[in-house]
Formats: sequence, C-alpha cells, structure tokens
Amino acid sequence: MCNQHTNTTPTRVLSVANAKAPFETTTIERRALRPDDVLIDIKFSGICHSDIHSAFDEWGGGMFPMVPGHEIAGVVEAVGRNVTKYAVGDRVGVGCFVDSCGECEYCLAGDEQYCTKGVVQTYNSLDYDGEQTYGGYSQKIVVKEGFVVRIPDALEMDVASPLLCAGITTYSPLKHWNVGPGKKVAIVGMGGLGHVAIQFAHAMGAEVTVLSRSMNKESEALSFGADHYFATSNEETFKELAGRFDVILNTVSANLEVDAYLSLLRIDGTLVNVGAPAEPDQYSVFSLIMGRRSIAGSLVGGIKETQEMLNFAAEHKIAPQIEVINASQVDEAYERVLKSDVRYRFVIDVATL
Amino acid sequence: MCNQHTNTTPTRVLSVANAKAPFETTTIERRALRPDDVLIDIKFSGICHSDIHSAFDEWGGGMFPMVPGHEIAGVVEAVGRNVTKYAVGDRVGVGCFVDSCGECEYCLAGDEQYCTKGVVQTYNSLDYDGEQTYGGYSQKIVVKEGFVVRIPDALEMDVASPLLCAGITTYSPLKHWNVGPGKKVAIVGMGGLGHVAIQFAHAMGAEVTVLSRSMNKESEALSFGADHYFATSNEETFKELAGRFDVILNTVSANLEVDAYLSLLRIDGTLVNVGAPAEPDQYSVFSLIMGRRSIAGSLVGGIKETQEMLNFAAEHKIAPQIEVINASQVDEAYERVLKSDVRYRFVIDVATL
Repeated sequence: MCNQHTNTTPTRVLSVANAKAPFETTTIERRALRPDDVLIDIKFSGICHSDIHSAFDEWGGGMFPMVPGHEIAGVVEAVGRNVTKYAVGDRVGVGCFVDSCGECEYCLAGDEQYCTKGVVQTYNSLDYDGEQTYGGYSQKIVVKEGFVVRIPDALEMDVASPLLCAGITTYSPLKHWNVGPGKKVAIVGMGGLGHVAIQFAHAMGAEVTVLSRSMNKESEALSFGADHYFATSNEETFKELAGRFDVILNTVSANLEVDAYLSLLRIDGTLVNVGAPAEPDQYSVFSLIMGRRSIAGSLVGGIKETQEMLNFAAEHKIAPQIEVINASQVDEAYERVLKSDVRYRFVIDVATL
Repeated sequence: MCNQHTNTTPTRVLSVANAKAPFETTTIERRALRPDDVLIDIKFSGICHSDIHSAFDEWGGGMFPMVPGHEIAGVVEAVGRNVTKYAVGDRVGVGCFVDSCGECEYCLAGDEQYCTKGVVQTYNSLDYDGEQTYGGYSQKIVVKEGFVVRIPDALEMDVASPLLCAGITTYSPLKHWNVGPGKKVAIVGMGGLGHVAIQFAHAMGAEVTVLSRSMNKESEALSFGADHYFATSNEETFKELAGRFDVILNTVSANLEVDAYLSLLRIDGTLVNVGAPAEPDQYSVFSLIMGRRSIAGSLVGGIKETQEMLNFAAEHKIAPQIEVINASQVDEAYERVLKSDVRYRFVIDVATL
C-alpha cells in the first residue's frame, strides 16, 4: 500500500461540458485507492468512433461533463494493499469496462462484458457506488486490479492502446466463430477496427478478403495480410463472391444491405456485426432460411480474452497503424474520423495534456 | 424390376390451373420407373401452409397447373431394378424434395436441402431433365430411392404425413442448435409446426415455453409437453421472460417484432426462423451485439436426418394432431388454414381422390 494514495488524486483531463461541445482541459479527482485498486499513469489513449457517438450523445443517455477514452495504455504508479497482480512500473492497459458483478454466470465464464448486473463502463457510466466514471483522455486513472491487463514488452505503448477496444472487438468474434486455417473470412470496412481485424484473421491462419467501398485501400490491405480485396461499389463483387465465406465480420457502423452480404455466406455461415448503426437493419428471412445462415453481434471481449489478445498481438507482431496527436488536437481528430480521414487510429499522447 | 412399370403411370391428382384457382381433379402421367426409382401408392398427403403460398403464387415463379403436396405417406407399389432399400409393400414417406446433385459438399454431408446445384422440390419445380414436378395431392408418385424414407411401424400413416415437412422443419433446427437437457427453448406460434416442435423439444429433454398470441391454446400446449405458456399480446410477458431462452424457434410466418424476441434470449442465444414472411424483418444491431445473440434460419432437413426424425417420433410417441379430410375439401381447408381454424394439420385421405 502506498500511503500517499489514501487520498484522491487530482488529474488533468480532456472533457466536454455537453453534447458536441469542444474539448477543454479540466481537473477531476480520481478516487483514493481501495485495497484492490491500481493507479495508472496514462501514457497514451486511443480515439474510438464510439467516443464520438458518446461525446455527441448520439446514443442518448450521455453524462456530462464527459471524459471519453477506453483505449488506455500506461504505467502503474501505485497499488492498493491487496493488489498482487501488478507492481509499480508495470506496463498496463484498460479497455471498455472497469467493473462487473463478478458473480453471475457470465462473469464467472470470463464474459464480463455481458454481466447480468451490467458492467461499469470506463466512462459515461455509473459505478456500483453511483459515481460517474471518467475515461482515458486523462493523466491518471484508478481501476480495480481485475480489470487491468498487462501490455507485453514486445508491444509499444502507443500501438497497444487501440488494441484495448479495436483489437479485442475484432479478436473476440474471430475466435468465437472459429476463424482459423481452412476458413474463409471477409472483413467489411477497413477503418480502425477493420485494419486490425485483417491482421488477426491472417495470423489465425484464415484466408482473408477485404470488402471496402472503393479500391483505394487495396495495397495497404494486402500489406496487413489480406489475401483478396474487392470493392463493394462494384456489383460484380456480389456475384463473384456468392456463397464464399464462413464468416463475415462487419466493422462498419452504417446500415448494411444485409441480404446482399448474407448471399456471400456459405451454408451455416455467419455475418457478425461489431459496428452498430443507430437505425434498424432489414433482412429477408429467406436469406437466412435458404442457407441456415446467421446474423450475429459481438461486444468487445472479457478480461482474460483481452490479455490473450494482447499476447497474441505481441507474438504475431500485430500493430494498429496509428497517428499520434497532441491533446489540443482532439476536436480536429473527431472531425477527421467523421470524414474517414485517418489511417487508421488516432492516439492521444497524454504527456501533452 | 416390375415390367408393368416400364411405361408411365396415369395418376389422378388435385391440381390448380392457375394462381388461386379452385382445385380440380385431373390426370397426369408419372414417369416410367428408372432403375433407382420407387413407385408409391399415396395414402395420405398433408396440407402445409407453404402449399397455399405456392398455389396462390405468393412467392412468385409458380408453375401451373400445379399439384401441391410435400407431406406424403404411402406404400411402395413397384421398384426399379437397382432399388435395394425398399420392397413392394413397404410403408414410406416423401418430403419437400425429390432429388439433389449428390456430389456437392452439402449433399455429401447429408444436407441435401442446401445442395449447391439446387434441390428438385417435390412440386412446383423443374427436375434435372427439365420436367415439372407434381406433388402429393395425388394417387401415386415416382421418386428416386435415395429421397424416400421409411415410416416406422409405430407411426400411423395419416399421422406420419405431416412429419415429412412440419416435423423435419422443427426437428432439424432443434437438433442443430443443441436443444436438450438443461436448455430452455421457446416455441413461437402453435400451429402445424409449433405443436410438433413442442413435442420434439420436450422429448429432447429441454424446458419448453410456448409463446402464442392469446392464452387460448394453453391447455393443449401443456398436453403436448410444454412446461410454460405465455401470451405475447401481454406486454408483461416480455418483461418476465427477459434473458431466459437459449433458443427461440419461430414457427410464425408473419413479421415479428424481432428486437422484442431477441430480448428474451440469454447471452449467445439464437432466434431461429422456420417461417418466412414476404416482407423484410427489422432489427437493431444493438440487440445482437449486447448479448452476442444471433438471428438464424433453417430449411427442412436432409434425408438421413428426416429418417432419424421419424424414428425419434416413433420412439417418443410424437404425433401431429390432424384433421383428415376428403379430396373435395381442400379449397375449404385452405380457407380454414388462412383463418388459423385448424388444430393443427389437415391431411388429405387420398383414397377419396
């Protein structure tokens, strides 16, 4: 136990006062360390598209002022007296949630993201004491040991940060739907999630096809490990690839022509969504029945699986391609994300905050 | 080889001249027996809702005159010279399809219904020689040995006929999605398919809940083996059953409030559709993502599985509840099916044709 952290820790953060307000630098207090807490000195914090949905309150229920950020990489600065897993100086990460009930069948199975009580999200959420959570656009954060993962030495800290959301969000469904040798997988969309998904699916041994609107990103897709690349703006693509894939991982959050994508699946194939449009999607039930096909969705991954994902990334040299920005550039970065003008993930250098 | 069947067999049938025309009795010729063909003297032929969709040409592409019927139970009257599986006098059945390529990976896996070349449906279809197929509202039918199944002695012929479509359509997905002891399954809709699905799911050892519009069929549902029964017209149902089921089997072909039903699934649960509405269904991707849930569909089942289903039904005393009608009553029966005025399946006594 570090006695200097029996008090709260004043922390500079980037916050928005209300929906769509510009970011400003303010100060919050991080809670005094509980016995099982870890205080993390944040080094890098990735910008996820869902940060923008939240900060703009597009999904409703936004809690303001808000400090977004759930792709957190940093160094342990202090630990509570019962912490055994981490020590001061350890390189660690925090993803999309910071607590769960720990007792329901899903928590016990390592699927904390589906906790029956509801996980405590890293920001824009109330913890089980009713306190609002504030995320990673911040100098420091206090997180329960069980929700902290270790960043392997082989991963650079800035590159590791997007893996905490973009990485696990794509790794988990690829594993869950058995992507591996002999399987054909399509990745729809080549943004922050898609460009990491290509690398994971390739490293898992699958044959990887990228489906992107235009041919613009073909050479980069191939450099990430894609075997094939097709433009969805070309109608021939849907004829040529009919009945081809075991799994289609859709990383795009716009509405999809679901039936057209279902037609690309083999019998028993699954279209897995990890991006969610605000409006409902439509499908013909015939598209499912005629091939025993499925439409599914997947939400990040559990803590144990997140650690497994980081270890896998380190072993297979999987690295998000990032653009590191200063704390003053976040508003501009949001605008660029909305224009798809980023290859492929912004990461805030928290030292500039 | 029976020499008397080297010629075609004149056969009285119930046919419709064009979409929505009344049924009339006409005569067609069944093909001369090929070496691997079986000539079946049809005893009973079930009426499936899809017969009505087809005869009314609601799905398009109807071939007229049409002889519907794909729930066929009869007795072998003659066999081709290479037939080894069946002998004259055997009690046999024919379901929704009468040929497939036999060579694609799906046929080889026993999933002929998903044949890459496309199965030849029992009626309203062209066979691989380009000849139109005519179904079971008919005195006799000629079918390739490999697409004929054996009706176990313990099953009455009239009761067996609806199993050839309604039975396999529900048995196959229940097996595919691992319904069994410890699993909670909901059956949506208690018509021709639903009332058989209840019996299968119960016999497989699952806890079975029926979701029907009103409470009208509760006592019958319980008599079929349901453990619970809820009315979907009562909004409390959706609150009470939230997160309950591993599998929901939807046997209704009307459009469903998909998100409401998805909310009844456990994590990793699946909503399986075997009924298909003409209009698209809608869903929020969030409903899938937030619980790694799936929407799926399933189409009848393969020949081997159909035999397994009949044997299972015989062993567990599973029996569709039927109303046997005369050939002259089919138009009236269609009207009653459309008004849901049947408990639960009409079966034509072909002796009256």
